[in-house]
Formats: sequence, structure tokens, C-alpha cells
Amino acid sequence: MPIITLLTDFGSQDYFVGAMKGTILSLRAGIVIVDITHEIPPHDIQAAAFNLLAVYKDFPAGTIHITVVDPGVGSSRRGVIVECAGQFFVGPDNGVFGWICEREQDFLAVNLTNEKFFGDSISPTFHGRDIFAPVAAALAGGSPLREFGPVIEDLVRLDSLKPAKLDDHTMAACILYIDRFGNCITNLTRDHLAISPGVMPAKLIVNDHEISSFREFFADGVAEGELFCLFGSAGFLEIVARNSSAAGILGAQRGQAVILRGARVSRSP
Amino acid sequence: MPIITLLTDFGSQDYFVGAMKGTILSLRAGIVIVDITHEIPPHDIQAAAFNLLAVYKDFPAGTIHITVVDPGVGSSRRGVIVECAGQFFVGPDNGVFGWICEREQDFLAVNLTNEKFFGDSISPTFHGRDIFAPVAAALAGGSPLREFGPVIEDLVRLDSLKPAKLDDHTMAACILYIDRFGNCITNLTRDHLAISPGVMPAKLIVNDHEISSFREFFADGVAEGELFCLFGSAGFLEIVARNSSAAGILGAQRGQAVILRGARVSRSP
Amino acid sequence: MPIITLLTDFGSQDYFVGAMKGTILSLRAGIVIVDITHEIPPHDIQAAAFNLLAVYKDFPAGTIHITVVDPGVGSSRRGVIVECAGQFFVGPDNGVFGWICEREQDFLAVNLTNEKFFGDSISPTFHGRDIFAPVAAALAGGSPLREFGPVIEDLVRLDSLKPAKLDDHTMAACILYIDRFGNCITNLTRDHLAISPGVMPAKLIVNDHEISSFREFFADGVAEGELFCLFGSAGFLEIVARNSSAAGILGAQRGQAVILRGARVSRSP
Repeated sequence: MPIITLLTDFGSQDYFVGAMKGTILSLRAGIVIVDITHEIPPHDIQAAAFNLLAVYKDFPAGTIHITVVDPGVGSSRRGVIVECAGQFFVGPDNGVFGWICEREQDFLAVNLTNEKFFGDSISPTFHGRDIFAPVAAALAGGSPLREFGPVIEDLVRLDSLKPAKLDDHTMAACILYIDRFGNCITNLTRDHLAISPGVMPAKLIVNDHEISSFREFFADGVAEGELFCLFGSAGFLEIVARNSSAAGILGAQRGQAVILRGARVSRSP
Repeated sequence: MPIITLLTDFGSQDYFVGAMKGTILSLRAGIVIVDITHEIPPHDIQAAAFNLLAVYKDFPAGTIHITVVDPGVGSSRRGVIVECAGQFFVGPDNGVFGWICEREQDFLAVNLTNEKFFGDSISPTFHGRDIFAPVAAALAGGSPLREFGPVIEDLVRLDSLKPAKLDDHTMAACILYIDRFGNCITNLTRDHLAISPGVMPAKLIVNDHEISSFREFFADGVAEGELFCLFGSAGFLEIVARNSSAAGILGAQRGQAVILRGARVSRSP
Repeated sequence: MPIITLLTDFGSQDYFVGAMKGTILSLRAGIVIVDITHEIPPHDIQAAAFNLLAVYKDFPAGTIHITVVDPGVGSSRRGVIVECAGQFFVGPDNGVFGWICEREQDFLAVNLTNEKFFGDSISPTFHGRDIFAPVAAALAGGSPLREFGPVIEDLVRLDSLKPAKLDDHTMAACILYIDRFGNCITNLTRDHLAISPGVMPAKLIVNDHEISSFREFFADGVAEGELFCLFGSAGFLEIVARNSSAAGILGAQRGQAVILRGARVSRSP
């Protein structure tokens, strides 16, 4: 039976996550449920989208990811299942699956309209328990994707992941995410840099700081608190500081601009 | 094999929850353990009682809920198993199961006196690991309820869930719980209101605020930060604000009074 | 199949823990994974070592504990597997397994050098996902310990757990850990005290406070906020206060000195 993962902004103080798990296990005994995180800041779709993007490839084919960060609960926003990269993504259609679709390009989305897959009663505030959990349980049990509703072509998308090329030597990027350790994860990947970071005559500019140290590893030969860049575990260039918070040192915010200058940037960002 | 759930005030920073899980899995390999929450404020029995009340119906028959919020650990307070609604509830006898028993009415409670079901050594501070986890594992393995100890008739109860009817147009209710999003969950249910909230000529009074907007849904046509009421996912009337904290706006505290006025309230609250 | 536990400083807001679980489940479907905690303060090896010490005995033989609190990630520090007490411990060689080895004395450690057990690509910042998770999955699948790398004799150790005997009536101990409830767990065990605490004519000195109340139980006959000592759930003498934080009352910090005076201390601490 496939794994079901949960990624929400429900926090861990209330009964919400337990209610989703109870609902799934009532419908599909013995299924393995894995928490990605429930500490997404309330209603922060981009933080959820980033964490899902960073983790889905670690799960086996067939995994069903329920992602509920839902400022529109109770409104007329749609619920969807997206099939992409051999996995399934279930949740409100608010853009949270957009970056995975942008990266994978090939995907299929259906609108959740077939109420036979929903719970017996639908509370106005808790579609995670009453719609998305039973839908995921049915999908895990083998119900075909197209039975859940019609295919849609207008899945909601977020702003593109891709940085903008300003000229041959300058790229306008941004901070996608700041993690617990204060590492600042940009939207720059190895594909955006023409040469390897170890020898890269480039600098990143964030607020008033310039960072020109690019490294392959983390700790060796770096002073505590010194800022540098490396390609992190999600495949993006991160600004980090050994054993301290780069975000704190930079005064950086999620979403803010980062300028890459001086490198010969790649032709097709 | 039945599911075992855990609901405690142990937090997630220490080894306590892991110790309970290790103990259960040592006794009963492969059993499915589900966390409800471990972030109940220390010693807050009412918060635990509310979360358990809101979630137990989502679990299948036979589920065993261990609930340990235990200001009396090490004192002479009893341990109990309560059988109710086809499920089992294990923990200290401090009232935490009271609201479920009040709602379900039909239940059976036994006092945990048969030490053959306890761990090999009992620490004075950690009955969750040394008594309740092994008891739940034995119950999951099929040991009959009455072998754990004598039936008791004086299970500790909390103050009633029910609001008080002051006159035909006024009911004194309270805020049972405030969730992560700042939604204020009252003890008013659909049974307490004679007519549907959509057309209800009523108002709720909390501190100096009057709320007269009652809705079936959450987001549509409501301004950000506007207070309104709806019946939430636990079946109670909640005071909410779209994408912001109703508790913050109201300055509301858990347990405080809420007056329902102007509706024709039902005859038997 | 053995259980795999996870103990990290990754927190619960990011995708890190989910990524480790996805990696393990991709390699070894159906294995039971148990979280000990992910809320170790960033880079705090001693807090991780204490929690692991307090919990490992609750798990069955063969359990594999992955412990990743890793200020040296990306540096040349080694990865290790330690076999001890019939269980396995996997993680960076930074001392985190030292107290278990000190207590158990008999253990075997190997350096993780055989890259066939690692993930396909190794990020510089996330050895938990890319090295330790696949190694644990292989170990769970039955790969023999010595295939992972050479035996090492110089496993990194922490400062000894043992208090120092100053004279026949005085012992210099310390606070090993402060838990969520503010209980202060010292490194004193029953072996260090010549007579039972119930009748012990002794006092503990912490900052300017003297505590001379030693009890076997927690709540009975103790006023709220009164400081006393008992042997807690991890087997160590703890300074506690009923329903309040002993650490707050004492102004105590993890690691600080505690003097035991006046008891006839045991001959061989």
C-alpha cells in the first residue's frame, strides 16, 4: 500500500493532525502515514510549496502527499489531485503544487468533485479531515484518478521558481525559504551558474552584504559566523554561516531579492 | 491489532514520548501508534479533555487512547481504563475522560490495580511509561477489561460541558478551547439553538464585543479580520475571523464567559 | 524488522525529518520509524546524549537509533555505527554515544567508510538523509556491522557522567539536563548514595539554595513550588517542584555545579 504524507499549517498543539490520521486509518487500516511538517506558518502557501518541493523525491513511487495550507477553507476554491513524477498530491488548489509541476512539467490534475469519496459530513473549516483524508485513503486503495473528478488545465500556479537574467553578468534571484538554522535558500541552482562554485568569480548581494565565498562543504576552514554559499540539500544555492544564522546576520526575509553578479551566468536561466 | 493513540503534556523536546513508544513496541511489535498531541500546556486537564473529545470519533472501534496530563503523578490518584463508544481510554483518573462520558452516557470504568500489567519497575514521575503504556499494550493484546481491576462508579468528572439557560432568550456559555489559529470554540452546539444559524436573530457577547454574524461557511464574502460564528469541526459554535485570530481581537481567554442573547434558545440545553 | 528511531536537532518546521523517513521507507518498505525528538537545541550534543541515554533501554533488542546533532556536518568528522547493549547507534562521531558506552562499557564501533551503503549523491549539509538514513536502512536489512567500515578504538567521548567525590561527605555533581517541566536532572544515581533518600541526612546545594527534602514520590504532602529531590524516570536524582519549574526557582542552567553535602557518600562514585 502506498505511503501517505501530511504537510499542513495545523501546528501540533491541537487535535487536527490526529483527526486526519484517525480518518485515514479508519478507512485504510495499517497504511503508513508520515508527517512532513505541521509547522508551516499559518496560511503560508509558499513555505508549504518549498518544503514539498524539497522532499517529494525522497519518497517512493505511488506516495500520496496531502498538503493542506488553506487560507480559503470554506470558500469556493477547488480541491485537486495532481499526478506528477509517479506520485500523487492532494489538497486545495491554491498554488502549493505549482513548483513541482514547473520542475517536472509533465503532470495531470483533476478537480475533486465526486462526493462519494468525501467523508459523511463536511465541516466548513476542516476539509483536511473531511475531504482530503478520505480522498487520499481512496486513492491509496486503488480508485482511479479520473473517478475523482474532471481533468483541469488551469491548476493554480505560484510565481515561477526561476531567477531573472538581467544581463550576461547579473541575475535577479530571491530567497525561497529560510530554515530553522537560519540558512537562506535561494532559487539559484547549478544550472544557473556557468562554472563550478569552487572557482566562481562571483558575489551574491543581499541587503548591504556581499558574499563572495562559495564552497562545496560546510565546516572545514570557515570561521564561526562567516557567511558563505553552497549548494544545499534541496539542490539550491544557500547562504549559510557555520554554527550561526545567516538570516540573522543578513537581516534577511523570505522572498526578498538576491543579486548574483560577476559570474558568467548561464545562457538560459 | 487496535491502534494506540497518545495525548500528553510531555512536549516534544524530551525523551518522554519516545520512551512510551519504545515500551509499547517492546511489548507489542508492529502496533500502530498515533500522536494526537503532546503540546497540551503542562497540567492543563481541560485542554486535554477538549482535544480528546474532538478527535476520538475519528478513530476506529477498539482504538486505545492513552491520555497523560497528570499534575498528581506520584500521589495516590488512581489510574483507570474507561470503555466508552467502543473504544478504550487509559490514564490517570483526573477528569480528562469526563466530557466523553458525559456525551456518550454509557461507559464502564475500572481502577488499575492489577500490577501484573504494569512495568517491571515504576518510577515516581513517569507513569505514562511505567503503567499506562504497558496497560495499553496488554489491552491491545486482548486482556479483558475486568482483569485490570475493579469496576468503579465514581470516575472523576469535569464541570459539565453544557451551557446554562438563563431565560428564554439568554444562555450563559463559555469558551472551551482556543486553537492555534485563535478560533474560540464555545460549548454551544446545534442542539442549543432553536433555529439555524444562517437566519438566527441572535448575538454572542464576549468581553465588550457583540458578534451577530452567523455563517455556514468560512471565507466567502467576509472581510479579513471580521468576527463571525460558525459550527466548527468539533461540532461546537466557534467565534472566528478570516485569516486572523479571533482570540486576539476579542482578548479572549480559555474558560471565559460567552453570553448568547436574543435567539429563541432551545428548551433543554 | 528492527525499529529505527530518530533523534536530531532538525526541529519540526522544515522538511528534514520527512526527508529522512522517505529515504528509509524507499529503501525498506514498512519499517517502523519512531521519533525520539527533533527539538534538541541546535548543535547541542550533550542534550542529545542525555535524551538517548534516558530512552534506549525502552526499545527492543536490535533497534537502530539514528542520532544527528552535527555541528561538524561537511567537515572531516567521521560517521560511525556503535553496537552496544544489543542495539545499534548510527550518526556522526561527536561524542553523542559516549554516555551509553560509558554505562554499558562493552561496545563495538565502526567507522562508516563503505560508500556502497550511502545514498546516490551526498549533499554537503544533509548527511542525515544522504548517509545515516541509508546506512540504517541497510543495517535493518541485515548487512553485517563490519561491512560498513573498519573497527575503531578511539570513538569520541564526552566528559564522564560520574560526579567527583571531594571528601567522605561531599560530592561535586552537575545538572545533566533540564526537562520541559523545569525538573533539574543531576548525574547522581542511587549508587552514589550510601543510604536511601527517604532517611538521608543530606542536602543538595545549587546556587544559593539548599535542598534537604528527599522523597520517593512526587505529589503527596508537598506544597506547590516547594523544592525537593527524588530519583526520576531516567534513574538520576532530580530536583523538582510540584507543579512548577525547579529550574526557574533555582535559576539553574544545564551543566552547572551541584554539591551534595552531609550524606555519607558511597565509597566508589
